[in-house]
Amino acid sequence: MSIIYVDNNATTAIAPEVVEVMQPYFTHNYFNPSSMYQAAQEAAEAIQHAREKVAHCLGHVEPDQILFTGSATEANNSALFGVAQANPKRNHVITSAVEHPSVLEVCQEMERRGHEVTYLPVSHQGEIDLDAYVKTLRPDTLLVTVMMANNETGNLFPIDQLAEIAKATDPGILVHTDATQAIGKVEVNLEGNLKQVDLLSFSGHKLHAPKGVGALFVRRGARWRPYMFGGHQERGRRAGTENVPYIVGLAKACELATQTVDEEQTRVKAMRDRLEAELLEKIPMLEVNGQGAERLPNTLNLAVHGIEGESILYELSANGICASSGSACTSGSLDPSHVLKAMAVPFTAIHGSVRFSLSRYNTDADVDHIVAVFPEIVANLRRLSPFWDNAKSCLTNV
Amino acid sequence: MSIIYVDNNATTAIAPEVVEVMQPYFTHNYFNPSSMYQAAQEAAEAIQHAREKVAHCLGHVEPDQILFTGSATEANNSALFGVAQANPKRNHVITSAVEHPSVLEVCQEMERRGHEVTYLPVSHQGEIDLDAYVKTLRPDTLLVTVMMANNETGNLFPIDQLAEIAKATDPGILVHTDATQAIGKVEVNLEGNLKQVDLLSFSGHKLHAPKGVGALFVRRGARWRPYMFGGHQERGRRAGTENVPYIVGLAKACELATQTVDEEQTRVKAMRDRLEAELLEKIPMLEVNGQGAERLPNTLNLAVHGIEGESILYELSANGICASSGSACTSGSLDPSHVLKAMAVPFTAIHGSVRFSLSRYNTDADVDHIVAVFPEIVANLRRLSPFWDNAKSCLTNV
Repeated sequence: MSIIYVDNNATTAIAPEVVEVMQPYFTHNYFNPSSMYQAAQEAAEAIQHAREKVAHCLGHVEPDQILFTGSATEANNSALFGVAQANPKRNHVITSAVEHPSVLEVCQEMERRGHEVTYLPVSHQGEIDLDAYVKTLRPDTLLVTVMMANNETGNLFPIDQLAEIAKATDPGILVHTDATQAIGKVEVNLEGNLKQVDLLSFSGHKLHAPKGVGALFVRRGARWRPYMFGGHQERGRRAGTENVPYIVGLAKACELATQTVDEEQTRVKAMRDRLEAELLEKIPMLEVNGQGAERLPNTLNLAVHGIEGESILYELSANGICASSGSACTSGSLDPSHVLKAMAVPFTAIHGSVRFSLSRYNTDADVDHIVAVFPEIVANLRRLSPFWDNAKSCLTNV
Repeated sequence: MSIIYVDNNATTAIAPEVVEVMQPYFTHNYFNPSSMYQAAQEAAEAIQHAREKVAHCLGHVEPDQILFTGSATEANNSALFGVAQANPKRNHVITSAVEHPSVLEVCQEMERRGHEVTYLPVSHQGEIDLDAYVKTLRPDTLLVTVMMANNETGNLFPIDQLAEIAKATDPGILVHTDATQAIGKVEVNLEGNLKQVDLLSFSGHKLHAPKGVGALFVRRGARWRPYMFGGHQERGRRAGTENVPYIVGLAKACELATQTVDEEQTRVKAMRDRLEAELLEKIPMLEVNGQGAERLPNTLNLAVHGIEGESILYELSANGICASSGSACTSGSLDPSHVLKAMAVPFTAIHGSVRFSLSRYNTDADVDHIVAVFPEIVANLRRLSPFWDNAKSCLTNV
């Protein structure tokens, strides 16, 4: 059975072009980029070219503001703890209730170490209330960190406005955004819509590069200290021998993402929209989490009332469809999604949520197949579900 | 011109077997190991098998004590900062003056944050004085962190004795060792010679796996907190989507290292010993840094009086020989090696030090070639060196 992979917000297939550009660094040029001989200098130059390529893709910024890391998680840890270390006089952090765990857990650790953190709530549509946000800004606010796009629902957040408001209130407030789900899907321009953002994180494996590489942008002048101490790599700002193949691969993936962002916003979006429309038409008591809000073009998060997400995923998997019920990074936990809870998705639906996240490698035939099998999966599971009758009556009584 | 690579303490060629086992995870199994579907579970199982394999290689320890990281640098940062976070009542750290920057720089950062650090000196041979060490232990000593083997000189340190003394003095003292240069070259047995060690770090790229993966062993019960916050990966002890190919590659590399440790201690050591003997015979005023001390079987660090290390490396490179003048991780700096300074290597030699570090991929022909060209390189450079006459007279007057 061939696999239909629609879990691209969890991770992506590595682009063949990326696999290809990495190969020489596995087989021939294995040298340490810090070494003096010619072959090693070629590895160092490959990193420099990669840095220029990534900087170009993020809005033609100066390349020396890009640090390569081992993941977006590391970039987020480095951004938040690094800003805290560099600014000991400010104590207050503003984030959203729907961040990725690699921001939320860092915030919680910062609280244990004495920081105060405000978690901005979101509406049922998943939107942040800008008026409420303004009121949370304080004289001791150190950092605003809000993701560009939510991994579970695809909700897009107005980082440009959040940054502008913060800077207008107090130019000393730093602004960070986790752009992991945004790059290649929506505009990410550090000299354009993100001109007022100081720090930005992302990973390779959400844009068809491997898992194990990410990047952190730190705008020149932003008060930040390194998180990984040791060798002089990355101009002393991120120690550790450089992962040359993955860095070269990440740059190629960024280049491809930039080239295909139009396709993402047209062909991929059209597939997502058709999937959404056809499933809503065929399945009763189905809701789109985040409907009505600005969303990523590739993401569809569905609340399927009355059944369990896990059984839906199991049946989808049995039909060759790889989807998920929220973030893979929290899938070890039995707690319901913190994102859907924050959006006040009803209990009968929160456990039955399914996320389809597409990529440029998906086809119309993939959508056809999902539309062909998913309604029947839902109907069968609902027939067996002890919750379904109850859920149905609750909902129809609302 | 074919390359003779004798800079294996800087980084190593990736073993063909390692390249091979990684490939399927670049092309076919790109799934997120935290996802539910079958193919993703295969990736999760691959990580589990890798963990078992690494645990087996380190002395048949329980696998859940091994965390995969993005580098030895990360493992060292995680070990030291993690121990500090978990034990706020103890404030004193003991390390050596010759650690890798990823330990030394962390210690210096800890000092900036209020810790006290003792840097154990070494003798001219590079050895730690155990009697002096005993005197540095204090009631508030939190951690002893000393490397197993020095990357520049190959000096081996008696971690078993250091740990035993620490634990006998105060069982509450934690012991960490950076084993990056030791694995595959000498005994690394966490149930044997390292039975009293609580934390151990190493990287993949010093043992023929790629750059960008490492591991941290944390013995069950050791008071330590994570350093990378976010998703539940590694049982909540190291967040970030797992780098499946590199983890699988690291395990294969560990397995190969275990299988070839005898070869390292016989054939590789014999090559190193012959290189050392023949160069000492052919080149006047040449010293072996660390001579007389216990050293790694693959490493030869030479003090070449009266000339500059950089010009030696340049000439070696022109003859197809990749060697180095100390640690690649400090090569961005113009400062002389902190290791050789700590060993009180004379000024006229410290700048003219060259390290040859062999691996199982080297051959007798490589040694023949170095022996054939190196003495002439030294003679030519000395003829041109403004320091040589002075160095010669200083040394002969001693």
